[in-house]
Amino acid sequence: MKIAVVGMGLIGGSFCRAVKAKTAHKVYGWNRSRAVIREALAEEAIDGEVRELSELRGFDLVILGFHPELTISFAKEHIDCFPQGGLTVDTCGVKESVVSELQPLFDRAGRPFIGTHPMAGREFSGFQYSLASLYEGASWIVTPPADVNPTHMAMLRRLAAELGFSRLVETDPRTHDATIAYTSQVAHVLSNAYVKSPTLQNESGFSAGSFKDLSRVAKLNAGMWTELFMMNREALAFEIETLIENLKSYDAALKAGDRAELFRLLKEGNDLKEWSIDREARRT
Amino acid sequence: MKIAVVGMGLIGGSFCRAVKAKTAHKVYGWNRSRAVIREALAEEAIDGEVRELSELRGFDLVILGFHPELTISFAKEHIDCFPQGGLTVDTCGVKESVVSELQPLFDRAGRPFIGTHPMAGREFSGFQYSLASLYEGASWIVTPPADVNPTHMAMLRRLAAELGFSRLVETDPRTHDATIAYTSQVAHVLSNAYVKSPTLQNESGFSAGSFKDLSRVAKLNAGMWTELFMMNREALAFEIETLIENLKSYDAALKAGDRAELFRLLKEGNDLKEWSIDREARRT
Repeated sequence: MKIAVVGMGLIGGSFCRAVKAKTAHKVYGWNRSRAVIREALAEEAIDGEVRELSELRGFDLVILGFHPELTISFAKEHIDCFPQGGLTVDTCGVKESVVSELQPLFDRAGRPFIGTHPMAGREFSGFQYSLASLYEGASWIVTPPADVNPTHMAMLRRLAAELGFSRLVETDPRTHDATIAYTSQVAHVLSNAYVKSPTLQNESGFSAGSFKDLSRVAKLNAGMWTELFMMNREALAFEIETLIENLKSYDAALKAGDRAELFRLLKEGNDLKEWSIDREARRT
Repeated sequence: MKIAVVGMGLIGGSFCRAVKAKTAHKVYGWNRSRAVIREALAEEAIDGEVRELSELRGFDLVILGFHPELTISFAKEHIDCFPQGGLTVDTCGVKESVVSELQPLFDRAGRPFIGTHPMAGREFSGFQYSLASLYEGASWIVTPPADVNPTHMAMLRRLAAELGFSRLVETDPRTHDATIAYTSQVAHVLSNAYVKSPTLQNESGFSAGSFKDLSRVAKLNAGMWTELFMMNREALAFEIETLIENLKSYDAALKAGDRAELFRLLKEGNDLKEWSIDREARRT
């Protein structure tokens, strides 16, 4: 099939590279900065360029690779350019605020749309960091409308398998946002807050795997994450507050010198992590 | 030289395997459970067994592989068995409470002792998880007394290089404890608290690298970490409270819908992490 990727940053660029490296589909790119198009052509990460947005109408699949706010404004401005015979998907990390805008917009225009979120990323941004392997082993979350065309779901499922995704996960936008507030967003907040201890000054030479793991995603694209967090404020605040309350229990046990309680708290966390490891093992 | 490892769990067992795999030294083991000795002999992880503790007197280096409380009680009970001509080191993850007990004990007995902490570990415990590669790229922290014999420091420095440690870091017990409260201990608390969100129930299919990294060390040896935390209560409580205060800032910005402040907070964390990455890059 013919795939267009519109917005070729880390996420869009990785879709281009993965389609080229792993499938027989044709992939064409559109990007605001022409430098990225030239680089993608030189590296054979795309088969060609989308020169006019109206060309998108002829594609089987259009993948929007923008951040949330630009995804919405771009779709509004160019709604007539999206295919009626093909499918358009976004790739935003929040779904409720994006899909509540885009689904009615595309529906009214008679242009099929499914909200999606490929669960992958890096602590770097931009096409130059994109990878053909970015989606290997990752989940591709989709929030199809009730009246979705089954052909489009089948197309995404086949493509997900071709690109190396471990699975296509169907959910609704609200559940998606509540869940990624935990699995992704608060993990980034936590890591970002962790490096703010004054003791970071003395860290060199005193670190093992736990420091490396806990601080890795402290390095992030502050603009993009601000946007994602602002679009999921309630769910993320719930996760931060839950975490603060849990941290307070350890602090209280330490201050009271309550060894039995400290052990109980650590064992409880250990058991939950083991349960989640076992759940994944049973699934595969 | 002749090395004895006393207490062959993950840490002691990995010293045995690393010495055998990477050096020409002879290594002998002592362990409470004989099953571990038989396994180590069968796997050629040691050259032989220390049958009587009094044999330790003839070794160039004795490495104590126990957790803190057992390290202290074992050393007190068997102080006459440690070498006068060789060096004894412990491997505990807290130093002030261990070294303040052991240094005077060994000094009075005329038996050289240096407190150490190899900065490596796994989320599994016991000899069966020990690895010849455990210390590759890790720091070996040492807290030598003021009147340390330079020959002993040179011996440890050579051994550290042979076993693959990236460096031998000299510090004092108090600085050690304050620093690892941050780089290691609070990271474990954080990870352990993170998995306690009720949203963990829905995590399957919604996780990428950040969840995996942030939750990895939630699985831990609750008994050992309780012991380590109870011996470093003040420094660890400081780090937990610092983290809680920092998390509150993100929560407040989210609740206020203060986009500029949220961006500032994220950028600040990003910049600190980049600074710490650059510091390591400049060092090597």
